[in-house]
Parts: sequence; C-alpha cells; structure tokens
Amino acid sequence: MPKNAIVIEGFPSKGFVSTIAARYMIDELGMEDIGFIESDRVRSVAVIHNAVPMRPIRIYAKGNIVVFLSEIIIPIQHGAEFSNALTAWIGKIAPNRVVLLAGITGKGTEKDHEIFGIANTDELNWKLEELKIKKVEEGMLTGISSDLLLYCVENQIPSISLMTETKNLPDPLAAASMLAILSKLIDLKIDTKRLIEEGKKIEEMFKEIMEQTKRGKEGHKEMEDYSPMYQ
Amino acid sequence: MPKNAIVIEGFPSKGFVSTIAARYMIDELGMEDIGFIESDRVRSVAVIHNAVPMRPIRIYAKGNIVVFLSEIIIPIQHGAEFSNALTAWIGKIAPNRVVLLAGITGKGTEKDHEIFGIANTDELNWKLEELKIKKVEEGMLTGISSDLLLYCVENQIPSISLMTETKNLPDPLAAASMLAILSKLIDLKIDTKRLIEEGKKIEEMFKEIMEQTKRGKEGHKEMEDYSPMYQ
Amino acid sequence: MPKNAIVIEGFPSKGFVSTIAARYMIDELGMEDIGFIESDRVRSVAVIHNAVPMRPIRIYAKGNIVVFLSEIIIPIQHGAEFSNALTAWIGKIAPNRVVLLAGITGKGTEKDHEIFGIANTDELNWKLEELKIKKVEEGMLTGISSDLLLYCVENQIPSISLMTETKNLPDPLAAASMLAILSKLIDLKIDTKRLIEEGKKIEEMFKEIMEQTKRGKEGHKEMEDYSPMYQ
Amino acid sequence: MPKNAIVIEGFPSKGFVSTIAARYMIDELGMEDIGFIESDRVRSVAVIHNAVPMRPIRIYAKGNIVVFLSEIIIPIQHGAEFSNALTAWIGKIAPNRVVLLAGITGKGTEKDHEIFGIANTDELNWKLEELKIKKVEEGMLTGISSDLLLYCVENQIPSISLMTETKNLPDPLAAASMLAILSKLIDLKIDTKRLIEEGKKIEEMFKEIMEQTKRGKEGHKEMEDYSPMYQ
Amino acid sequence: MPKNAIVIEGFPSKGFVSTIAARYMIDELGMEDIGFIESDRVRSVAVIHNAVPMRPIRIYAKGNIVVFLSEIIIPIQHGAEFSNALTAWIGKIAPNRVVLLAGITGKGTEKDHEIFGIANTDELNWKLEELKIKKVEEGMLTGISSDLLLYCVENQIPSISLMTETKNLPDPLAAASMLAILSKLIDLKIDTKRLIEEGKKIEEMFKEIMEQTKRGKEGHKEMEDYSPMYQ
Repeated sequence: MPKNAIVIEGFPSKGFVSTIAARYMIDELGMEDIGFIESDRVRSVAVIHNAVPMRPIRIYAKGNIVVFLSEIIIPIQHGAEFSNALTAWIGKIAPNRVVLLAGITGKGTEKDHEIFGIANTDELNWKLEELKIKKVEEGMLTGISSDLLLYCVENQIPSISLMTETKNLPDPLAAASMLAILSKLIDLKIDTKRLIEEGKKIEEMFKEIMEQTKRGKEGHKEMEDYSPMYQ
Repeated sequence: MPKNAIVIEGFPSKGFVSTIAARYMIDELGMEDIGFIESDRVRSVAVIHNAVPMRPIRIYAKGNIVVFLSEIIIPIQHGAEFSNALTAWIGKIAPNRVVLLAGITGKGTEKDHEIFGIANTDELNWKLEELKIKKVEEGMLTGISSDLLLYCVENQIPSISLMTETKNLPDPLAAASMLAILSKLIDLKIDTKRLIEEGKKIEEMFKEIMEQTKRGKEGHKEMEDYSPMYQ
Repeated sequence: MPKNAIVIEGFPSKGFVSTIAARYMIDELGMEDIGFIESDRVRSVAVIHNAVPMRPIRIYAKGNIVVFLSEIIIPIQHGAEFSNALTAWIGKIAPNRVVLLAGITGKGTEKDHEIFGIANTDELNWKLEELKIKKVEEGMLTGISSDLLLYCVENQIPSISLMTETKNLPDPLAAASMLAILSKLIDLKIDTKRLIEEGKKIEEMFKEIMEQTKRGKEGHKEMEDYSPMYQ
Repeated sequence: MPKNAIVIEGFPSKGFVSTIAARYMIDELGMEDIGFIESDRVRSVAVIHNAVPMRPIRIYAKGNIVVFLSEIIIPIQHGAEFSNALTAWIGKIAPNRVVLLAGITGKGTEKDHEIFGIANTDELNWKLEELKIKKVEEGMLTGISSDLLLYCVENQIPSISLMTETKNLPDPLAAASMLAILSKLIDLKIDTKRLIEEGKKIEEMFKEIMEQTKRGKEGHKEMEDYSPMYQ
Repeated sequence: MPKNAIVIEGFPSKGFVSTIAARYMIDELGMEDIGFIESDRVRSVAVIHNAVPMRPIRIYAKGNIVVFLSEIIIPIQHGAEFSNALTAWIGKIAPNRVVLLAGITGKGTEKDHEIFGIANTDELNWKLEELKIKKVEEGMLTGISSDLLLYCVENQIPSISLMTETKNLPDPLAAASMLAILSKLIDLKIDTKRLIEEGKKIEEMFKEIMEQTKRGKEGHKEMEDYSPMYQ
C-alpha cells in the first residue's frame, strides 16, 4: 500500500454516481487492479469487463491514489460488516486523506448536479469554501459512507464527503460533475470530457446490464414457482 | 458521572416529542456531550448538526443533570437489548431520580398536549398532584420506557414518567408543553419561548430530514431491484 | 408455594376470557401477588393497575389456590418456551389439581357461553357430568393450554380443562359464566355479580387499552418509515 | 418392536388420505398405541379422541404391523428433521417392508381415486403389476415420503409407495380405495365398508376440526393486532 | 475420477437448458451414474426416471467426460454453499477443462438460441472465434456458474462458459443448439436429432412434472391453512 495514501471510496449510491466516477477515474488514470474484497455476503456474482470476468468489489492504486469500488449494491443488512472491514483496512494504511463519494436525492435544489460537502479539518473546510461547495449544516447520512465518515471523525483522519444531487439511474453526468470537483480537491488531472460525451452510451450500457440482472432475477423467481422446495 | 444525578430519557416516541424536548434542553442549558452509545444494532447512521457528523444516540451532562437521547428510532426487536444496556448503566450511576419522557396518542382528551404521569414514590406522586398532572390509573406502556420504568419500580429508584398527548409528527409544541412541566418538576430553568416561536421552523427541519431519509430508503430499494442478489 | 395447590391458568385465549376470569378472581378473593414471570420473549411491556406499573405475567396465591395469568398474548412462536417453564414449575410444586381456562369459538352451539370440558381422572369426569358440562369427544387443542394438558395427562396430575364459547373480544360475560362453573368445581366462593354488572365497563376499559396499544403500534410503524434503518 | 415388521407410514398428504387410512386401519385392526413422537418442532398441539387428549404423532402396532401416523401437517421446513428421525428409527428396527401412503393430485386421470405405485424390488414390482397398479415412470416426489423412499432404495429395504388421486380435502373414499389395495398387498383383512359408509360423517368431522383450527388461528391473529409486541 | 477430466456443469438455468442438455448427453453417450450430492439444503425431493427414484443432483462419467447436473433449482440463498462444495471438488480432481452451461435471457438478439461465450485461455478464446460464438464483452453473471467461473479464472483452470438465449420454459431446442456447439468444442459426438425431434414431447413431460410440483406446493399450502401451527 502506498504511504500517505489518498483513499477514494466508490461504493454504489443513488444513481450509481460513485461507482461510475470511480470506474471512469480508474480507466482515465490507468490505475492498477491491486485486489478484490471477497465476502460470504457477496457471492455468486461476477462482472465482465472487456470479456474478462472479475469480482464486483475491487481495489485499484496508482501513486498514492487508492480507489475502492463496488459494482454491486451491498445488501443493507450486511453494510455494517463491510464498514467494519473497510475501517479496519483504513486504520491499517493510515491514509493521508479519505474522500467519500455519494449520490443523493431530494435536497430539492434547482441547480443540476449540485455538490454538497462535509469535512472534518479546517484545511478541508477552507477548500470546500474555496470551491464554493455548499456545506451540509443539518442532516442525516446513512450507509457505509456514514460509518466511514464517523470513523474518520473519531480517529482524526482528514476526510471529506462529497455528495451530488442526482435524479437519474444511472447518472454519468452527476459523476462527471463530481469528478470535476474531486480533481480540484486532490490536485488530480481527470479529464471528464469523454465521460460527458459518452454519458448517454455509459447510461445505456449500465441500464442494459441492470435490466438483464432484473430479468435474470425474475426468471429465477418464475422457475422457483416450479421448485418442490419452499425457501 | 455526577453524584445524585437526575437522569432524563429522550428516546424517540410518538411525535418525536422526547427527542425534541431533550435536544432543546441540551441547547438551552448548554449541556456537554459526554459520550455516545455504540451498538451493532444501530449502525450506518450519522446525524449532522452545525456541519459536524455525530452518532445518533448520545449522552449529555451539566451539573447533576444527565440527558440521554436518540435521534433515531430503535428497531423494536432490538429495544430490549438497549433497555438492558440502559438499566445496567442506570444501576451503576445510582441516580437520585429518573425522568422518562414520552409522546402518546389516543387518550382522546380535548385538551391540547395534555400531560399524564406515573410516579413510584409518595413524594413524586404529591408533585404530580401539585402540578395537576393526571395520573394514569389503568393502561399499558410499551417500548424502552416501559423497561426503564419497571426497572426503577423494582429497584426502588424514584422515577417519574411523563406522557404528553400529541397528534403531529414531529410535534415541537408538545415538547414545549412537556418541558414546561419538567422544569417545574426538577427545578430547572428551561425557557421554552424559543421552542414555541421556532416550533414551525423545527418542525420543517425535522420533516425535511425525515423526508430525505424516506426518499433515501426508497432510492436504495429501487436500486436493489437491479441488484443480482436476493436479501 | 402452598402444599396441595390448586393451580389455575389464566393465559390469554379467545375473548381474553381466561385473563378476565383470573383477574376478577384475584380481586374478588383478595389474592396476593407472589411473583412474576420474566422472559426475554416478553419485554418492553408494563401494565398499569391502580396507577402502579407491573409485569404483565404474574402469579397470585391465597391459601392453596394459585393463579397465574398473563395480560398479554404470548407470541405463538415462543409459546413452547413458556410451556416448558410452566410445566417445569408445575412439576416442582406437584399440585393437587390443575385447572386450565380457555375461550373458544366456533363450536356453533346455540347456547350462550356454553362450557365444554376435558378431564383426566374419573373423579373429575364425574364432576363434569354432575355439573352437566359437555365433554369434548373429538377435537384439537392448541396453544400453551394444550402443552399443560398433555403434561398433566402424561404425568398423572389431575387436571381439568374448561372451555367457554365466546364471540366477543373481550368477553367478560363468558368469563363470568366460566367462573360460576369454576367456583362449583373447586368449592370456591366467587361472586360473579360485580363481573356481570360491570361487564360493559370492563369491556370498555379493555377495549380502550387494546385500541391504544394498536394505535401505539401503528404510530411506531409510521415513524419507522422515516427511520434510516431497515429491520 | 416386532421382528420382520411391516412399517406403514401415515403422515398427512393431499386430502389427508394417508392419515385417514392409517387411523381407520388402527381402529379396524384394534392396534395398540405404543408411543408418540415428541419434537420441539411440533409443540402446543393436542388431539382429542374419545375425550382423551393425546399427541398428534403416534406409533401403533399389532403383530408385525407397525403404523406411524401424524394428525398434523409437519411444517415443510422441519420435514427433513422428521425424516432423519424416522429413517434412523427404520434403520434400527430393520423392517421386512416399508409401505408409504400418499394422496396426490393432478395426474389428470379420469378414473376416480386411481392408485399409482413405485417399488424397489422385483417381487414388489410383480405385485404392483398383478394388482394392476400403474407404475410412475417419470415424476417428482416431495415431502417426508420422498426421504423415506430414497432411504429404502439406498439401503435395500423393500418398499412400496402407494399414491392415490384425490380431489377432496379431506377424502375418506380415496383412503378406502388405498386401504383396499393395501390389504391385498400385505395380506391384511381391512374391511373398508364402514369407511365408505361413514365417509361423509368422517369428512364432516374432519372438516369441522379443520375449520375450528382455522378459526382459532384467525382469532389468535386478531388478538395479536392488539398485542403490544411485534413478532 | 478420470485424469484430465472435462467437467461439464448442468445446473438449472433459464429454460432448464443446462439440465436438459446434460440429461440428453448422459442418455445419448450412455454415461454412468457415479454419485450424487447430498445436502441438508436439498432435502425431501426424489426424482423418478424409468420408475426408479433417485436424488435430484447427480454426477455421471464416461471416459474423461464428467457431467454433474441438478434437476431442481438450488434455493438462491444456498447457492454459495453449493459453489463451495463444487469448487472444492473441482480443485481436487484438477480437471483439464471446465465447461459451464447456462440459459440466459434478454440479450435481445434476433437469432434464435444464439450462443454467447466467455473463456479464460487463448486457446479456448480462439475456439470461440473459430466457431463464431459471440464473446460477452460487458455484463454480469450470477448464480453458481459465476462462482465456478471466478474459481477457474483465479486458479488458472481452462474454462469456457456457454450461454444460450432462451425464451421458453423449458426449452429443449435451446439445449440442442447448445449441445451442437458443445460437441464441436470438446470433440464429442452428440447427435441432437432425437432431442430436436422429441423436443415437444420433452417439453410436455417437463411441463407436466413442473405443473404437478406447483400444484403439490399449492395443495400443501392449502392444508397448512388448517394446521394449528404457524411457521
């Protein structure tokens, strides 16, 4: 693991914004696949990219940038288990900074893909202000992100949580909007041009896989009607 | 922990009355955050106040007043576990008095926010009468409050349970009504003027966070339809 | 525990007949509260009588009469656990006789509150005949009563099971009808006059508490919609 | 246990055919009650016959004939546990022959109560042919019967599985039809005349108990609405 | 177990394509039944072929060809357990090649029963191209197949996953289409003529058994309504 790592979280959130942002960043920066997370809670799923089957939860690195992403939704009841594994891992690598990415909904703002932020150091708070990112004053956070955020707050690990408004499922443009801010926040060059141009295509590909997955589940359900066993 | 503590419980009840009352009291008296309750049963939730993320179940103290509150609803099936932890904690600090706060519904009284009470010492019963608080003669109590009440009764800890009629969700005015009685009961100066004036605003803020939470849950549910896994 | 005890069971059954009968008998005979049953399966419920909070499952005694009653319904999946505890307890006190009370429905008889019986000794069977109580020839019994009955049958403890037809929820008149028989069966003087006179009042009080309980549950359910956690 | 036992299984199946057949055979042959099966999976149920409460799963014997029957449906998720207990028991008594009885539905044959069979020895297969019982060539068997059948096949215990078409619930005539075949198969004199004559009466009695059971369950469900606890 | 085994998986998938293909291949090649998989997760089911009851998950072999198939759907929540058993078994026999068969739906192609493939060695990829099988570039795989595929990829076992489009349930023609490709892939002579000719008949037989199974489940459900126990 790199020293002084900047760890970026890309677990699924509203609009799959974090996953799309993380995957684009990995491709764009040519990051290296350095491992995957195996769990009894996430079994019997393989994702295929460029005709290669791989695990859906993977870790990538380049320089001191480490990205971990999941291409599947963690069942909510197993979230805390993943949080435990992830915070133990963060504790071990003692990163310089943790950036949490999330799509959110319902802030009701007029602006498209507006970004909101929370940070736990003065320096990061100044950065948020500099970049004119609205701070969340009152609210509630849930999911694995909230566990990671509390862990960083309680263990004095500088962290920033970026949230972007999203209405679509999936929403590549919200991911682009978030990456634009992220590149300024951590001085990374991520050109989001291709993401914006190919947004529609990425959206279609995501939707098709999502639809296939849904149909596959429904097909299994239909077959189970004919299964002699109850479950 | 303070000696001769007066412990006040502010776990969620009908109308979030107890939580609102506890939070207002903490702000108004400038009480100090002295800890939080961590539990595997309440994970993956952070609340944000003044742009600071914190745990949803916290303990505050000032002088001999100790308030514990939860900003989230304890799943009913885990209630007894929390009761066990709380009664063990109450047993250890041997408080001078325990005050349980609850919003209730359906007593069908005409009066707005009428307060009902139960106490387990003659002295506290006299106080209830003095303050013209209706005693509950026959009834049933449920939830964590009922466990704490039985614990106090069976362990001779002076305790009083205050219940206020509420029809709204959330109901800051019912909280104000309850705090007015509470301040007389334990000789505390809690000015409820701001709570009454800002009632509408507090109600709005609460509602917005509640709506966001609900939408977030629905959004997660929608995404799970596309997840390859059953749960 | 008294020697040669006559144990009377008053766990909830159709129409809350057994519970009402047991509570009336306790009041009428001035029986003493000698204990309660504590269980992880029945938590977070307190009942209030005469402004005193108490456990919902309690044991009362006077002379050699022992009554155990529950004011709440034991969740059906935990019934067997309670049966185990109760039969172990019955085994220890080796009672002279066990009387099981139950409300039933659907025998389709014309007579109001007709009483049916089963007994496992010749003497008790004669008593049933003497009192012109119809014997159940063919049928099925369920719930905690059925476990206690089988235990008595298999361990040669004289026992009688009284069942009364009931159509109301709650049904104090069915309880009165049952107590009239019970007082003849075990030579106890229980005057059911007050129960019959105050039947309507008792019914109202029960209904009100039941409605409050139902509303309380619905209110909790409503609040859980806004809870960030799934359960 | 008798040597060279012929074990007959009468666990509930479609139309309660096996249970009715087993009970009639027990009565008709005057078989002796030699035990019952007790299980944590089947609690809180007693059946009453001739005013005597008894366990619903019992074993009867006369000469080398052993019948085990259940008067209640084994919850499907606990079926395998019962199968394990039963096959262990069959393994211990090393019977000469095992006969499995089942009601089935949907073969779509025109003939009323047609009997189908499967056997695992040449001798028993000849008998099936002799009695003009249709063999099941392709199909799927489920439930406890299927476990017992596989056990017999894999442990070389001669066994025969008789299935009768049934459309009614309960269906005493299908039971009579099956007993007629059974008496030829194992050289037993079982006069089914009374079963045919009293078919309607048996059907009514069964239906009444079934309806009572259903109403009892619904009544419990209704009362649980008013219970303070979730389950 | 044969050395250099070619292991072919025939667990149920969309249209029961894999199961039908595996069963036809076993019959056509006259493969020998060499074992079955016993599991507490798959109990109380027997399948009958040619009047012989057998386990639904079986292993067959001939020469170096090993086929394992299931005739019942593995409940999705137990899939990972089966995957663990199967990968442990594959690890032990160190096969020369693993072929996974699956029916899929929703690729939306015009061609009937089009075959798609994924392979993890250059040699197998060339074969796919030679046979003009479309590679899956982007996608998601689920179920036991996905676990076996990831196992092969991560343990350098040459493997190929064949997927065929199917719209019917069951779909013998899709199975024939898949077997035609399979016979070219592993140089096996499997004449699919009979499968195509008898397709309709196989479909009918499958459907009848499926319908019987469904009716059997519904019948059990109906009877459970009259059962005194909740489940």
